[in-house]
Amino acid sequence: MIDSRLDQFIRRIKAQRACLNRAAGLISSLSGPIVELGLGNGRTYDHLRELFPARDIYVFERDVAAHPDCIPDDAHLLRGDFTKTVPGALARIGAPAALIHGDIGSADAARDAELAAWLGPALRPLATPGALILSDRALGDALWPPEPLPRDVAPGVYFMYRAVALY
Amino acid sequence: MIDSRLDQFIRRIKAQRACLNRAAGLISSLSGPIVELGLGNGRTYDHLRELFPARDIYVFERDVAAHPDCIPDDAHLLRGDFTKTVPGALARIGAPAALIHGDIGSADAARDAELAAWLGPALRPLATPGALILSDRALGDALWPPEPLPRDVAPGVYFMYRAVALY
Repeated sequence: MIDSRLDQFIRRIKAQRACLNRAAGLISSLSGPIVELGLGNGRTYDHLRELFPARDIYVFERDVAAHPDCIPDDAHLLRGDFTKTVPGALARIGAPAALIHGDIGSADAARDAELAAWLGPALRPLATPGALILSDRALGDALWPPEPLPRDVAPGVYFMYRAVALY
Repeated sequence: MIDSRLDQFIRRIKAQRACLNRAAGLISSLSGPIVELGLGNGRTYDHLRELFPARDIYVFERDVAAHPDCIPDDAHLLRGDFTKTVPGALARIGAPAALIHGDIGSADAARDAELAAWLGPALRPLATPGALILSDRALGDALWPPEPLPRDVAPGVYFMYRAVALY
């Protein structure tokens, strides 16, 4: 049984979509904007727009290189390194978020672990009580209780936390 | 029912994998190397390595930017624009290919159609009789009979041709 990088990628991106779709139902009664960490090519942003047409979606990205149709307007785009843009972002996004999604993984596991360790605590002020935090890396294990994953998502492929118990 | 760019992408990449996996069985009795047009991040190349451990895999790529583990050695990497590297490539790859895969689509439909129209005929000398040509764009409709798609791949999502009837 082969398990190529293509297989791993398909598993992860399907898990991402399943978690986002699940989250949409779970936060339906919660107010607050959506936060997307990393725009990439804009595919996930486009999915978020479809899932949350009535919410503000704020995207944090250092190097904007997405499909032109998938770039937020300047009011919703926080350009720069996460370490610069995430602290203090609450003033910019106006209200704590109902959903924070961070597809932060790279091929560099050490860099990813360092970023995740920094990012979890940095995101706390941006999450409203009851918010969901979703990521492809374990960034909230010490901060938030895990939210049950969709049935077809294997543990460790994607991560969901609920920003509630510790507030 | 939403159909975001994320949904479309997942559909396409799953179709790609299904077609490649199907192709591996279909060409098992055919000799010849594998040709991959476009390295990208190297995920599909990694899948091809797993599917075809005993075959030479030649990759055509203009701007090599893949994961370091997923870059072919210089003997198997044809750097440059397809329009420069594909014509005359037979001398380089040594024998006509048993499988040619081209994930050539971009966000620019006009550019894609132009490339596909050029690429199909340009690939003919590289395909051994009976070879399969797979692509995310219709590049062989005027050249080769279509090969039946795997059951879970919808028509138009991915394309498979058999380089046999017209030889």
